[in-house]
Amino acid sequence: MGEPREEKGKGDTRVPPSLVRYELLHEDASGTRARRGRLHTPHGPVETPIFMPVGTVGSVKGVGPDDLLTLDAQIILGNTYHLMLRPGEDLVGEQGGLHRFISWDRPMLTDSGGFQVFSLSEKRKITEEGAAFQSHLDGRKLLLTPERSIEIQETLGADIIMAFDECPPSTESRAYLEKSLARTTRWLHRCVKAWGRERSSLFGIVQGGMDPQLRKAHAEEVCAVDLPGYALGGYAVGETPEAMYEGVAYSAPLLPRDKPRYLMGVGTPDDIVESVARGIDMFDCVLPTRAGRHGLAYTRFGKINLRNARHAADPRPLDEEADCPASTDYSRAYLHHLIKSGESLGGMLLTWNNLAYYQRLMAGMRASIAAGSFADFSVGAKEGWARGDLPARS
Amino acid sequence: MGEPREEKGKGDTRVPPSLVRYELLHEDASGTRARRGRLHTPHGPVETPIFMPVGTVGSVKGVGPDDLLTLDAQIILGNTYHLMLRPGEDLVGEQGGLHRFISWDRPMLTDSGGFQVFSLSEKRKITEEGAAFQSHLDGRKLLLTPERSIEIQETLGADIIMAFDECPPSTESRAYLEKSLARTTRWLHRCVKAWGRERSSLFGIVQGGMDPQLRKAHAEEVCAVDLPGYALGGYAVGETPEAMYEGVAYSAPLLPRDKPRYLMGVGTPDDIVESVARGIDMFDCVLPTRAGRHGLAYTRFGKINLRNARHAADPRPLDEEADCPASTDYSRAYLHHLIKSGESLGGMLLTWNNLAYYQRLMAGMRASIAAGSFADFSVGAKEGWARGDLPARS
Repeated sequence: MGEPREEKGKGDTRVPPSLVRYELLHEDASGTRARRGRLHTPHGPVETPIFMPVGTVGSVKGVGPDDLLTLDAQIILGNTYHLMLRPGEDLVGEQGGLHRFISWDRPMLTDSGGFQVFSLSEKRKITEEGAAFQSHLDGRKLLLTPERSIEIQETLGADIIMAFDECPPSTESRAYLEKSLARTTRWLHRCVKAWGRERSSLFGIVQGGMDPQLRKAHAEEVCAVDLPGYALGGYAVGETPEAMYEGVAYSAPLLPRDKPRYLMGVGTPDDIVESVARGIDMFDCVLPTRAGRHGLAYTRFGKINLRNARHAADPRPLDEEADCPASTDYSRAYLHHLIKSGESLGGMLLTWNNLAYYQRLMAGMRASIAAGSFADFSVGAKEGWARGDLPARS
Repeated sequence: MGEPREEKGKGDTRVPPSLVRYELLHEDASGTRARRGRLHTPHGPVETPIFMPVGTVGSVKGVGPDDLLTLDAQIILGNTYHLMLRPGEDLVGEQGGLHRFISWDRPMLTDSGGFQVFSLSEKRKITEEGAAFQSHLDGRKLLLTPERSIEIQETLGADIIMAFDECPPSTESRAYLEKSLARTTRWLHRCVKAWGRERSSLFGIVQGGMDPQLRKAHAEEVCAVDLPGYALGGYAVGETPEAMYEGVAYSAPLLPRDKPRYLMGVGTPDDIVESVARGIDMFDCVLPTRAGRHGLAYTRFGKINLRNARHAADPRPLDEEADCPASTDYSRAYLHHLIKSGESLGGMLLTWNNLAYYQRLMAGMRASIAAGSFADFSVGAKEGWARGDLPARS
């Protein structure tokens, strides 16, 4: 298959059928719903299941130039809310788009801005038109609508853009949830109408909280719109892991089998393995980068807090099998010292370790799905996390 | 010449003549006192004139793993005061020494801790014995003496260690300065007595402020002790650049021609070029790393403040001739955005740029001294800084 971009001749204004296209390669043969696939995008392929590091305001925090390439990150995520406030989408557009601005020529996804309006800005007000809010940076009054969100995202120019939706708190009444879902569906139709299809592919978002009835109804409304991909929103927002797994198990099969399924804002390694087992293809989360800056390492043996005094004199590497600098070049004692001293190198090294671990976990899942052994892989990963970190020999 | 370390047989306890040895390669033929040399150390050679990036608490701030190798840094500096407080020299010693702890197998220098006791700690009190002070971290009461400083530095295990001295404020009375210098000389003799010579080479420090008489007298006292190198302290502590250049012009020739001359805590690119012209071989300063974290770039065209709004929409690289990521991969607009947004990548990129510029400046000086054209090189560098940054085409 040629690249969709190349198929489109100059002056040819017909809508390309799919700038982003999902290719289902394998379905797990070991008793789960795990899928091995490939997402074709204008900036190259993405092997799924995939984890997308988050580059909130145009850089993946704690990661140096070229480190994402060394880590072989295939796709990263940018936050529309942050970028529209600073430096502003027009400036990014004038600088050649987000890919060029941040010097990243692999695939990219932007969210709609909605989630951050609801979580970060003050005095937000949701109406049929959209969300009025004040910037958390300078108090400016702004309005984000489905049309504006699509306009901003298309100006940024990510390969995948997300529909503008509301992710209502699970504490809201059922009446409110129904009203919100109906509005999110109307917003989706407005997004589709505003969508120029020139270089960005729009994904729809299914909400509905933990209520199977609402999920099913909303999935039917959203999937009735033919889009290159679909996401599940409204998970990992405070519910227990078990509730989320149950929800994902119910919701993932509501999404089309021949399209990529993206579980937004998830999650821990455990969450990701459980969700892949339930049929999810794409993930994003600030966890590996944020935890790294705070001294937490994700490893084969679970989470290790390098701030803990037990590492102060431990000459061992973080993980003797890991091949990233945090483990190959330094001891736990040094990592502990850096974190305790607030040296940026500590956060850089643990961020690298965490992204490398996530990369390794995703690659392991992809290989095991293809080999028909995902269930074994999953059990093995969980046994490692359950075993926990080994104490230093004394 | 073999490595001094290898010359020393097992069980052979005689003092090696010079673990660190200076080889004078060229003296400038273009009318300055600039020298091109080579410092042989147990961890390999250092080409002089050299700038040493500062790794205060065991990491050069804002620099990723292996970046110092990419930058071809030849020698770095660690701060005894910081390291004795955290993680403590005993821990570093148990972890195999500072080289191994921080994963740096090239030459290293540590200061004596004295300067930071005087500048960072509270309630310090100087007596004949040493300096009593309270830790700026936890208020612990501590005593640093010449013997303790040498013990700590030898435990850390740098190639070059510095004598414990007092750097008195220039506002002190002449009577106090004379008293301080005499004590610093007595401290030097105690340092020499405490010095084990096993793997670290001790440099003496000449103080004396801006007073030529005091400088000369102290240089005679210090250089009467045969040491592998000598430093000038007490410059770049608030005097004008002109006063410093005049002082260095007077003081550098007071140091032996066949030993390396180290100007402590200096400085700006201008300071360094002027001081090389006056016969200095070694420099250290937090300026390129600290300025980088604060959005200041050192370039061929002088200092550029990326925080300035004039860069906000400037698509040009910081310096089109520079070959480091800040210039090759990104625009000024992006660097401005990162700095304004407080993204760590901004500080990382500008730190890299600054260290790369310092490296390039030092390499240019070394080549021009060898070629007999240092004076031309110096004029060219200053013309670039004076010209200043070019505005964007409009």
